[in-house]
Amino acid sequence: MGLMEQLDIDAILTNVRDALSSGNWKQAVDIVEALRPQDQAEVFGDLPPREQDQLLPRLDIENSADILEELGEEDAAEVATRLEAGDLARILDEMEPDEAADLLGDIPPKQAMEVLAAMEDSEEVRSLLVHADETAGGLMTSVEVTLHKDFTVEGSIAHLRAVSPKSESVYYLFVVDEMHKLAGVVSLRQLVVSPPRSRIADIMNSDAVYVRVDADQEEAARLMSHYDLLALPVVDENDCLIGIITHDDLVEVLEEEATEDIYRLGGVADEQPANAPLSATLKARLPWLIVNLGTALAPAAVLSLFEDTIAQVAVLAAFFPVVAGVSGSAGTQTLTVIVRSLALGSIEPRDGLRALGKEVLNGVANGLAIGTLIALIAYVWKGTPVLGLVVGLATLLNMIGAGIAGVLVPLAMQLLKADPALASPILVTATSDAFGYLVYLSLATLTLGMLI
Amino acid sequence: MGLMEQLDIDAILTNVRDALSSGNWKQAVDIVEALRPQDQAEVFGDLPPREQDQLLPRLDIENSADILEELGEEDAAEVATRLEAGDLARILDEMEPDEAADLLGDIPPKQAMEVLAAMEDSEEVRSLLVHADETAGGLMTSVEVTLHKDFTVEGSIAHLRAVSPKSESVYYLFVVDEMHKLAGVVSLRQLVVSPPRSRIADIMNSDAVYVRVDADQEEAARLMSHYDLLALPVVDENDCLIGIITHDDLVEVLEEEATEDIYRLGGVADEQPANAPLSATLKARLPWLIVNLGTALAPAAVLSLFEDTIAQVAVLAAFFPVVAGVSGSAGTQTLTVIVRSLALGSIEPRDGLRALGKEVLNGVANGLAIGTLIALIAYVWKGTPVLGLVVGLATLLNMIGAGIAGVLVPLAMQLLKADPALASPILVTATSDAFGYLVYLSLATLTLGMLI
Repeated sequence: MGLMEQLDIDAILTNVRDALSSGNWKQAVDIVEALRPQDQAEVFGDLPPREQDQLLPRLDIENSADILEELGEEDAAEVATRLEAGDLARILDEMEPDEAADLLGDIPPKQAMEVLAAMEDSEEVRSLLVHADETAGGLMTSVEVTLHKDFTVEGSIAHLRAVSPKSESVYYLFVVDEMHKLAGVVSLRQLVVSPPRSRIADIMNSDAVYVRVDADQEEAARLMSHYDLLALPVVDENDCLIGIITHDDLVEVLEEEATEDIYRLGGVADEQPANAPLSATLKARLPWLIVNLGTALAPAAVLSLFEDTIAQVAVLAAFFPVVAGVSGSAGTQTLTVIVRSLALGSIEPRDGLRALGKEVLNGVANGLAIGTLIALIAYVWKGTPVLGLVVGLATLLNMIGAGIAGVLVPLAMQLLKADPALASPILVTATSDAFGYLVYLSLATLTLGMLI
Repeated sequence: MGLMEQLDIDAILTNVRDALSSGNWKQAVDIVEALRPQDQAEVFGDLPPREQDQLLPRLDIENSADILEELGEEDAAEVATRLEAGDLARILDEMEPDEAADLLGDIPPKQAMEVLAAMEDSEEVRSLLVHADETAGGLMTSVEVTLHKDFTVEGSIAHLRAVSPKSESVYYLFVVDEMHKLAGVVSLRQLVVSPPRSRIADIMNSDAVYVRVDADQEEAARLMSHYDLLALPVVDENDCLIGIITHDDLVEVLEEEATEDIYRLGGVADEQPANAPLSATLKARLPWLIVNLGTALAPAAVLSLFEDTIAQVAVLAAFFPVVAGVSGSAGTQTLTVIVRSLALGSIEPRDGLRALGKEVLNGVANGLAIGTLIALIAYVWKGTPVLGLVVGLATLLNMIGAGIAGVLVPLAMQLLKADPALASPILVTATSDAFGYLVYLSLATLTLGMLI
């Protein structure tokens, strides 16, 4: 058996390209078709467009469908856009209906209409196309087999054999009543191990977790992850079963949502891999930098207010990176924990007051530790005890302020129904910079006689 | 049927606590047992220890097992530590073997030995206990049913009925040869829809993806997520099947790994929810702040070098937040994208040179935009054209430097076999602060005559 080893995708890619460039189509096809679908897509995605167009029509139609399913959304749309309507329709007929619908949504509408007209099974796909992308409806696929409450176990197995579903997603079989309302769920395991004459209604779990078609995809992911579900039924406003969301969609949503949070916390607008084109990268980053330029004007204005003090005691500037910078890091720590805890549901906005109290205490403790250290460093380095006191006290106060900002900024975002991760360290840093400079330079101005 | 609604956990909690405090045990038990296991654990976890100890022995043993499985690791260990060895053993006998092994690893070794001695099914659990926590072996559970290559489909179904596995994780049935070596995989769906007389060897997929018992859990998660697997077989050094990793473990590992990256990027050492006790929070955050204090001394030293220049042109200080701060944000953007792309495998260290080239171009483009803006702002605000030029040029150069640091710091971490997320914005910010002040104040010193 071909047990799993780490594949050398680069070496495979070289072999495929060599075969293609010498016109040895069969060899290229054989190399690709020997791979698992996900690896086929990885190799295919790394080929230049011209070679993709040479290879695709020569592959088995099922392999073509697998590749378009497994390619990234944008790559798949690019390849599909270059195909004739008839060829694309034949490939889409082989794809999972939800993947086919997603792909049709990503190509030019005119081409999508032509392709739909040329498909054999366009009905299922058409019904999935109407749902918005980031909703449960946008994730779901159609149900291949449903059972009826009054079926027996052996009748159900016979039904299953007759339908002979292609998809593996039949580990849960959903049960409906005469109105097609969702009535319960039976696992394929239960079906196999239960006495053949039992009625489905007697062995099913009638307390199935479900989601409405217009719910957010994050809600669907949260339910599947909380209740350890492999598949989640999707119902319409009459509780009728209209689709299921499968586990591979859950994994994708979880990775997407984590990436989105990481990027937003890092000040990047859109999910952009490191190898995205420069124009996309600029579009995702420059707007945030301009916002940051705006927020940086707050601490800039504070510094400008105290020009006289700085001119008289220029040594004060040496401690800006600690008073403002280290406190900014403390604020970012708080922000990170609050944003992730909100995302995982381990705290709610109503826990805000308790979190605030804890972060103030945390700010006091960290501020005492870091403030004492920097006060000693300042005293030893510059030989002025009052400077040490001013730097240390400013650091303590700003640590507390940064902790408060780190709680309040994301909670305010959540209460305003925005993504807390959008708060981003930029706002917390600007706040703690401005507050830090204000406290530090005010203290310095008050003790000016002792610092000069 | 009881369709899914958002449960009001707080209201349920209040009812349970009222029932417990009035000694109405049956009512408390009834409320909890009517919930799904994950919700039982959520309510149970929010009870004070004394009430947990009142409730647990009164619950059905299966519900107790479900609660200990679904509670967070630390909560479960705390509850378990307070139980008598015999009571805990009875509960562990009802748990999934991998969950039981994990829990035994988290309680005092002496208690764990007593509990193991008192368990009925200690063999399975004992064999799982030897594997390190973050490896494939630490994640796996034992296999309830295996098929033999020479079984027929109907023989396999009869075997399945005879074993009557409790766990739903039989959607994949793994096939072994006479030496118990992994030979392939059959899905339960295939088994149900295939002709009864077919041989397993003829319908199985002999190219099953597997993982070795000592592989890292991230490698296991990567394989399951890449190949869309519901279960991943684990083999020993002789390719013998010794366990499987199930989809719920995958979801947990994905969430854990994303949280770890988010926390490291935010400068927090350990996964700590917002409601962790203060001491744990301090332990996770203070060390990073002390490191940050150390790195902040680099820009502090640069500022100290230029005290004379700052004393003569104090207005320079007003632009520190832009020259250093906004460029630091640009460096953090680059770092974020590189770290996440490395984690998701969309770039490799060997792509470093290309990434570096792109980030330099990106730094030039962003630097020209932000540099021009801030030069204009500085000129209009302070009325000195040369100041505008110095601020703008320093911003441009520092943006390029920050981009370079944002690529090189995480790649260096990866090449040193450390987690790239450990690079953390702290190092990138310290670098871009120090470099930014150096460039800015050098330019200012050179043009001093035109600035005063």
